[in-house]
Amino acid sequence: MASTHSGNPRVVIVGCGFGGLETARALANAAADITLVDKTNHHLFQPLLYQVATAGLSAPAIAAPVRHLFRRQANVTTLLGEVVAIDTAARHVVLADGPMLPYEHLVVAAGATHSYFGRDDWAPHAPGLKTLDDAFEIRRRILLAFEAAEKEADPALRDAWLTFVVIGGGPTGVEMAGTLAEIARHTLPGEFRRIDPASARILLLEGGSRVLQTMPEDLSRRASEQLEKLGVEVRLDSRVVAIDAGTVEVQAGTGAAARTVTINSRCVIWAAGVAASPLGRQLAQTLGVPMDRAGRIVVEPDLSLPSHPEISVIGDLAAARSFAPGREPQPVPGVSPAAKQMGRAAAANILRRMAGTATRPFRYRDYGNLATIGRNAAVVDLVSPVGHFKFSGYFAWLFWLFAHIWFLIGFRNRIVVLIDWASAYWSKQRYARVVSDIGDGPLL
Amino acid sequence: MASTHSGNPRVVIVGCGFGGLETARALANAAADITLVDKTNHHLFQPLLYQVATAGLSAPAIAAPVRHLFRRQANVTTLLGEVVAIDTAARHVVLADGPMLPYEHLVVAAGATHSYFGRDDWAPHAPGLKTLDDAFEIRRRILLAFEAAEKEADPALRDAWLTFVVIGGGPTGVEMAGTLAEIARHTLPGEFRRIDPASARILLLEGGSRVLQTMPEDLSRRASEQLEKLGVEVRLDSRVVAIDAGTVEVQAGTGAAARTVTINSRCVIWAAGVAASPLGRQLAQTLGVPMDRAGRIVVEPDLSLPSHPEISVIGDLAAARSFAPGREPQPVPGVSPAAKQMGRAAAANILRRMAGTATRPFRYRDYGNLATIGRNAAVVDLVSPVGHFKFSGYFAWLFWLFAHIWFLIGFRNRIVVLIDWASAYWSKQRYARVVSDIGDGPLL
Repeated sequence: MASTHSGNPRVVIVGCGFGGLETARALANAAADITLVDKTNHHLFQPLLYQVATAGLSAPAIAAPVRHLFRRQANVTTLLGEVVAIDTAARHVVLADGPMLPYEHLVVAAGATHSYFGRDDWAPHAPGLKTLDDAFEIRRRILLAFEAAEKEADPALRDAWLTFVVIGGGPTGVEMAGTLAEIARHTLPGEFRRIDPASARILLLEGGSRVLQTMPEDLSRRASEQLEKLGVEVRLDSRVVAIDAGTVEVQAGTGAAARTVTINSRCVIWAAGVAASPLGRQLAQTLGVPMDRAGRIVVEPDLSLPSHPEISVIGDLAAARSFAPGREPQPVPGVSPAAKQMGRAAAANILRRMAGTATRPFRYRDYGNLATIGRNAAVVDLVSPVGHFKFSGYFAWLFWLFAHIWFLIGFRNRIVVLIDWASAYWSKQRYARVVSDIGDGPLL
Repeated sequence: MASTHSGNPRVVIVGCGFGGLETARALANAAADITLVDKTNHHLFQPLLYQVATAGLSAPAIAAPVRHLFRRQANVTTLLGEVVAIDTAARHVVLADGPMLPYEHLVVAAGATHSYFGRDDWAPHAPGLKTLDDAFEIRRRILLAFEAAEKEADPALRDAWLTFVVIGGGPTGVEMAGTLAEIARHTLPGEFRRIDPASARILLLEGGSRVLQTMPEDLSRRASEQLEKLGVEVRLDSRVVAIDAGTVEVQAGTGAAARTVTINSRCVIWAAGVAASPLGRQLAQTLGVPMDRAGRIVVEPDLSLPSHPEISVIGDLAAARSFAPGREPQPVPGVSPAAKQMGRAAAANILRRMAGTATRPFRYRDYGNLATIGRNAAVVDLVSPVGHFKFSGYFAWLFWLFAHIWFLIGFRNRIVVLIDWASAYWSKQRYARVVSDIGDGPLL
């Protein structure tokens, strides 16, 4: 039952990650009243979240307050709130505490969360990395593991404290494992008296046959080599079957060679899977819209929902396809550039609907992939009209560095990150090694 | 029952605030095995903690990892741990989890915590500012108060969200109130659509007859004037008698004019009192040593304990006196320079005891006092051999700024703070406005 509403059409955007941010920006000149709501007060530059998790950057360096970003866009109202339901019949968004938000157009960009493949009991033992709180928790565990090892008299327990396991060989896992090795081998030596941090073991467990599976095979191989050079033990064909407070059980190898291995570790990091936000599942069930295995909503070519052209779903919440003329539709990956492009496309289609013209199918332009491994090491896979470039090593790392700084939002953030990294590079130090309290966690 | 111990004398230092840090540093060349234990992993520059609480600086800018600071001092072992007891008969320190720490010399520098004058039930409603966790909590409440006001339909509740109360007119309270006014009047306007942040009320409640009571009267008066110019309502002779989740009850005025005033506020900050750490109380009770009203241990002139010359107590935990030739002993204030000087004095006396020579009484050199009020405003009271200088306003603020940056530990920290403040000054922005999650606190 749509309410009669005079005045500008109301657009509600749920989520201010890359998708929601670009949607709102692309509507800067629209004759619309836009409400942008997020359950945090900041836009997070997720590609650098692993730096906060490894104490290399402080949180404000990669997080910008949303209402500050949109202060000059008069048609945007920013609200801090958690969306608990979407009433698609009455066309309003329901917040946990706050006013109802009626809409003529809705963009749902609530993102993804961790997936433990049905084993949510693993979550307390193996935190993932999606939000700032996740990053703080991982940072706390990493720093406290070395502290606990320094105090530990029992050699077996000490080894468990100095064994770090990263689960998942995608970009996040590779970055975390490489950076952990940097911390152990370059940052901390000399600061402890009873342990040698450089003796820490860092294991990267990947269930498939290579790391960075979305990249060309030769780059996967280079990444593995660079990880091993840094001292990371890369274990392929290794599927985790159990995690508790002190151990990880792994089924390693394939076929007849498969065997179960137990690793004693008190610091396990999950980088193996994400699933769509529960809000997506709720929306899909309400509307009877299909979801894929990861809980992402299967959207129409123009990113809207079947029978609900006024609702678009974008970013990690959407199972979207890319439509290029003369080619088969391609699945769109859950990466930041795709979320940004979907945001712009959703905004363009909203403008078309407002004008009464036909919407257009989404077309994803894949410019390639980057992943860093550690100091001086990265792999870059670039796709451009003039050719396909693949490179790795030091130059790739510089490219990766500048690309990430370029895409950071906010001039000050760029300067801060540049300074922090420049001095960290020269001094091998990490800037943000603050743990505010020991906490009551399972560690101690 | 002292254990027979061959080898270097063991010195245990509890706490790595200003007192503990200076003790350890002053023993750099001692033939001793020093263990420095703190329940956090960092040394905190407390004078700038209010900047983290008001989202002006990130935590790493004012906190340095202890083991990094002492990495090159070979006779220091750093441990992260919480001291739960001191066995003064057996001469060892007991940690919550970790090895026992035997000592020949012990320095207790565990610092202070908040005092609510017996009303600990006020603590959840009025957080104080002593640790990084305190700063994060206060920052969260300040930022969320404006967010909640933006969503609030009821005007009375909205006013309560936009009413901030700071309790206590010492330097911390004055700095918090002045900075809150800056945030409301300079930082946030333009970023909200439903509220006008500049209309927020900021009240500073002081029980006595002037703010900054440790400073000369004319400087107190200037500070009040500068606060009022910033839009802070300074209420003198105002004693808090009750605090709950939504109100503060104040007994205002003296004698026949006294009346009770109720203020509706959902963001109250406590800056009215500190008390010695519980470890101090425990130590005093064990040894039958007197404490003053704030729970600080009454120490000997050389900062040691009666009948236990091997134990020194320094910093905010100690009720110490300053002995200058030809003058009456003076009480030593609980300020950072005093803690640093006591640290150096305790170290010097440990070296004397090790050499078998007589210890010396502590002499505090009071160089004066600084407090800032906000942009361009501070009061400075300097005591030097060449004279007594008092000034306020813009030049005092510059002096305050550079003095604080000078005393920050770590070159990188100084650069970071300088850059953050320079750009904040020019842009009127605050850098660290990150709230990682809405939380389950009493606000929402």
